[in-house]
Amino acid sequence: MARQASLSGFTELLPAERVVELHVLDSLRRTFELHGFSSLETRAVETVGSLLQKGEIDKEVYAVSRLQADEDERGGRTDPQQLALHFDLTVPFARYVVENAGYLAFPFRRYQIQKCWRGERPQEGRAREFTQADIDVVGDGELPFVYDVEMALIAAEALEALPIGDFVIRINNRKLAEGFYRGLGVTDPAAVLRAVDKLEKIGEDGVVAELVETGGATEEQARAALRLAAIRTPDTGFVEQVRALGVEHPLLEQGLTELAEVIGLASRRAPGRVVADLSIARGLDYYTGTVYETVLVGHESLGSICSGGRYDALAVKGDRRFPGVGLSVGVTRLLARVLAQKLATATRPVPTAVLVSLADEDGWAAADDVATLLRARGVPTEVAATAAKFGKQIKYADRRGIPFVWFTTTDGDGVRHEVKDIRSGEQVPADPATWAPPADDLLPRVVPGT
Amino acid sequence: MARQASLSGFTELLPAERVVELHVLDSLRRTFELHGFSSLETRAVETVGSLLQKGEIDKEVYAVSRLQADEDERGGRTDPQQLALHFDLTVPFARYVVENAGYLAFPFRRYQIQKCWRGERPQEGRAREFTQADIDVVGDGELPFVYDVEMALIAAEALEALPIGDFVIRINNRKLAEGFYRGLGVTDPAAVLRAVDKLEKIGEDGVVAELVETGGATEEQARAALRLAAIRTPDTGFVEQVRALGVEHPLLEQGLTELAEVIGLASRRAPGRVVADLSIARGLDYYTGTVYETVLVGHESLGSICSGGRYDALAVKGDRRFPGVGLSVGVTRLLARVLAQKLATATRPVPTAVLVSLADEDGWAAADDVATLLRARGVPTEVAATAAKFGKQIKYADRRGIPFVWFTTTDGDGVRHEVKDIRSGEQVPADPATWAPPADDLLPRVVPGT
Repeated sequence: MARQASLSGFTELLPAERVVELHVLDSLRRTFELHGFSSLETRAVETVGSLLQKGEIDKEVYAVSRLQADEDERGGRTDPQQLALHFDLTVPFARYVVENAGYLAFPFRRYQIQKCWRGERPQEGRAREFTQADIDVVGDGELPFVYDVEMALIAAEALEALPIGDFVIRINNRKLAEGFYRGLGVTDPAAVLRAVDKLEKIGEDGVVAELVETGGATEEQARAALRLAAIRTPDTGFVEQVRALGVEHPLLEQGLTELAEVIGLASRRAPGRVVADLSIARGLDYYTGTVYETVLVGHESLGSICSGGRYDALAVKGDRRFPGVGLSVGVTRLLARVLAQKLATATRPVPTAVLVSLADEDGWAAADDVATLLRARGVPTEVAATAAKFGKQIKYADRRGIPFVWFTTTDGDGVRHEVKDIRSGEQVPADPATWAPPADDLLPRVVPGT
Repeated sequence: MARQASLSGFTELLPAERVVELHVLDSLRRTFELHGFSSLETRAVETVGSLLQKGEIDKEVYAVSRLQADEDERGGRTDPQQLALHFDLTVPFARYVVENAGYLAFPFRRYQIQKCWRGERPQEGRAREFTQADIDVVGDGELPFVYDVEMALIAAEALEALPIGDFVIRINNRKLAEGFYRGLGVTDPAAVLRAVDKLEKIGEDGVVAELVETGGATEEQARAALRLAAIRTPDTGFVEQVRALGVEHPLLEQGLTELAEVIGLASRRAPGRVVADLSIARGLDYYTGTVYETVLVGHESLGSICSGGRYDALAVKGDRRFPGVGLSVGVTRLLARVLAQKLATATRPVPTAVLVSLADEDGWAAADDVATLLRARGVPTEVAATAAKFGKQIKYADRRGIPFVWFTTTDGDGVRHEVKDIRSGEQVPADPATWAPPADDLLPRVVPGT
């Protein structure tokens, strides 16, 4: 990662780094499939009209048009039919659900692991091309609340399986915050959410000032909002702390019940991995209930590596409403940190476990027969391309990170097979029909970094 | 696939179709890794200058520019720095090799499975967004010829493992054809290659006419070129047939030797899967030695589903030349036919093998404990979201294609677990800590279509 990308914001990995990325992607896929999510991909392009319909005009989208098209065929920013690359996987998935509703069985569970693109200025944790790994459950008309609990459990399990160290999933609930503000008598709860979201940036007094000046709140209301935002518990203790603030509202009650159910069940299954964090405001403007975000402990500055929440209407088709709850893992963001700080590394950059050496140029077919026997038992194997001196063939294996070299020699006693572990130098007789490397050497593995 | 894509040329699969695609991708990956190829991905965008440098001006590339950029920041077709989506994986890989040569061990073997985009008019076998699966071996300065043999073997093995029925890999050699034409005394071998490439379209007389009129060939030379193109043998018999035509040239000799080596070794390992086909001219203009293409038997009209060849200079960096040999599987093209004609189908659209039912709403945590035990042994499991009547929960499983439903009941005798195969109706006692479904039901499988 010390290398400079030749196009800023478009990272390309080296083979050993890609082994770590593949490990992360395979692991996420496995967890998602164990929980019954179907794989899905959507096309890379959407119409600008579809991408920007949620008013996300601040997103820097990449427009796409045929290079040989006439200038007037290349729509401008005002043409809703102009094609553009998707900037997340939620908007394309919502469109897919509407288009294919007749072919899907609801509640529909899908995972989607794809590249996304944003034209924003690149910085650590923010690339122009990046991979997201999303899961969503979407219902037709209704979607039981228990899926909100399930999402937190899956997130904990999925992240637990990654080589990323400690993490905390912070959970809040839009109804809780909005109900609290309404109970306080605030006239514009959305403005309070926006102001509280700036807490880390502008501090408590800054938030109070903003709320009083532009949020239509009294100083007392503003201070109460900050007291709410200060609550953070690893269990359902937050309920009592909120009640102690003396604010009442039916929406607040509903939010407390929901958040308590998520935190209660999730902290039972994954103790220490979840906290109720009432300071979380990000996403509260578009999510309608539970919201999740996740930080790597010791890497909080990286921002959230797994975020999501509940939408009352993820998609709408005429009268039909499709509520959803989901999560998105920022694979590229996560990986950038893992690779830069060597939190995890690959045991080798190539899949190859064995190089079958060549004693002479005519021996290639026989060597390939040995390789075929090894591969038939799942051992990744290459055949040397030239009958260079054995020392040179061993050096080739060493340079590429291949741990074993196979030697076949023919003399008066017939054909003799031997295999050398070039790390230890140990060389032993071996039968190509039965030999296998130690399990740890079969495939590249990802291990904690040094 | 009977559904209409909402954007022409941008196909999106349904979950059961995606199971088939994933199976194809996983299978290709497995074969490639068994042969020692490292996974790699390149960014989706290249500069127009890089994409079009091989003179591929006929390719309809998609330009990419920030929607909010000023009009003059959105380069026109004359700006070589304009970004565009890659239309294949060879051009990006060549750039990657040049940029990262200092970090790679040569010969470098990589596979790359990614989307590509072309703005051409969509038709069967030609989408605007499509997935290619490429392998290449690239050397630094030199690359032994035996890799040309290896490519054919890997192609046969990789395609053999796919649910696509019978296929034939047709192999030719640029040196053979060019040497033959030179030996004939033709002044413009490239023109002959182009004319012979139209054989199927315009017929023998058409090719002769074109060669005589614009190729600078005599009718006799043209007829000889056609006799060469008529040669097709499943073994090295082509060598004798070419010699019988009485043409001599050193380049022809070299081509005969190379093609004989590829066909000889490949027909030994994969009998019936390869033919020497001297009519193949496509690609001979940019490949410099061996060329491969592959047809599905009975689906020849689909075009080649796996093509490639040898480049003397896949990439160039100053004085440094990187020769390569590789193959590209047209996954989307292949899959379109497999799905449209139901050559293969998925046993179910969801990964889920078991739905753990809910006896009452308070039972979710206990049901999730059962699910956790099953998942720990690799059994994809969901938990029902509501304690509806069991009949309704079974119907939900049936609708989603989940084969087993788990029941937990508590009575005076304690907790009793049972699992029902909802296809047969058979219900048996089961222990969540040890029970597993039959191997065929563990994961969705891909089976020959009906």
